[in-house]
Amino acid sequence: MELGDRVRIVLVQPMYSGNVGSVARLMKNFGFRDLVLVSPSAKIDDAARMYAVKAQDLLEGARIVDSVEEAVKGADIVVGTTARSARSPSNVLRGAYSPREVAQIANRTSARFAFLFGREDSGLRNEELELCDVVLRIPSSRAYPTLNVASAAAIVMYELFSASRPAFRLRAAGAAEVSRISGEADKLLEAVGCPLYRRRRAVRALRNVLGRATPTAREASLLVGIFRKSRARLEASPASGSSA
Amino acid sequence: MELGDRVRIVLVQPMYSGNVGSVARLMKNFGFRDLVLVSPSAKIDDAARMYAVKAQDLLEGARIVDSVEEAVKGADIVVGTTARSARSPSNVLRGAYSPREVAQIANRTSARFAFLFGREDSGLRNEELELCDVVLRIPSSRAYPTLNVASAAAIVMYELFSASRPAFRLRAAGAAEVSRISGEADKLLEAVGCPLYRRRRAVRALRNVLGRATPTAREASLLVGIFRKSRARLEASPASGSSA
Repeated sequence: MELGDRVRIVLVQPMYSGNVGSVARLMKNFGFRDLVLVSPSAKIDDAARMYAVKAQDLLEGARIVDSVEEAVKGADIVVGTTARSARSPSNVLRGAYSPREVAQIANRTSARFAFLFGREDSGLRNEELELCDVVLRIPSSRAYPTLNVASAAAIVMYELFSASRPAFRLRAAGAAEVSRISGEADKLLEAVGCPLYRRRRAVRALRNVLGRATPTAREASLLVGIFRKSRARLEASPASGSSA
Repeated sequence: MELGDRVRIVLVQPMYSGNVGSVARLMKNFGFRDLVLVSPSAKIDDAARMYAVKAQDLLEGARIVDSVEEAVKGADIVVGTTARSARSPSNVLRGAYSPREVAQIANRTSARFAFLFGREDSGLRNEELELCDVVLRIPSSRAYPTLNVASAAAIVMYELFSASRPAFRLRAAGAAEVSRISGEADKLLEAVGCPLYRRRRAVRALRNVLGRATPTAREASLLVGIFRKSRARLEASPASGSSA
């Protein structure tokens, strides 16, 4: 079963309908479908619909239940999100995981997950966190750690989505392609009459920069082109090499 | 200079004041201070202030400018965010990076960065993306890839914040602590008279589970406690070992 089919998003007593709409949109952005609202004071109103944009179906399909226990029924692992720090006196927070850690766990098991997001003003209560198998804390500034519920949901769903699929990777240039770039730069500098010691220094700097940048194959070929075309133009001109 | 002091957040023609407020709050959540609005149609109004919550100072301190060029002045590297896929016909999108990749780059240089976020309805224009040194794309579902601007900002700032500080890590239990858990489980099973072949199978399963879970030192000591205390209680009772 794909991750999108075994993750439930649970909003506990959401107050603002805009947040419910934003979360529905995020679910569609990241391929999730199962939305549950626990005793919402927020209504599915115009604001909710405006923020949901193309996720009206998820908004309309949201299940409304009376208790957290009911909301997590059928889930193997219940994850509670909190902004309270591990330095908090509450025991339950001491073992909090980052969104990335939880996403990695979710990705390597086939368990069904329910992610709980708390009230806009007070988050999840201690007894609700005690219900959870895993407590998730988003790293944030100590000066103001509490995120908006839709922002927290964005980060958690983004991590789940990213962990569940191989990163889209542009093909990195191989060592031969990269060294061709500095080789062509070297030939160009030689063609313009640059003294050897300066050429070496410049080419070394270029190789260092390329080493840190890990260019893609396409970038490497474009860079080779810059040096090669410049040299070709120089060598075609009658003053070649003499004006440098 | 810390990352928080060399990252500027630029909203290009934001339309909804709630989004401007949300972004200000996120900046405070993740330790950023420099907010620039390019020709906003959104006003700094009650909705903006409501969404900013404890980031009123950032909202009031936002600079308003007339052009993207002016907004990115002083930045060494300009990052444009887009939802358009690398399959887009536009050349500029072919080399798009993920938020994590950009955060890693930002973290290992001392350059000043400006992150551009586009209009709610149409994003950044091609000519604005052409201005950028780096194009950033948030991985998302092909069915509905375009995130709300505040959600995109949440993910980008979260990645920047996370990359800039060592992950908070609970101390993992060492191999000796972990094998003490299964050792104690084995002794308990022996004490209750469990046949050897069953004991071996059960202890092997426990070791597999622990191997995947990488328990923290605190969890390991709590688990050891479960088995040890149970055995101690069993051995203290007169019927010890005979009733299993």
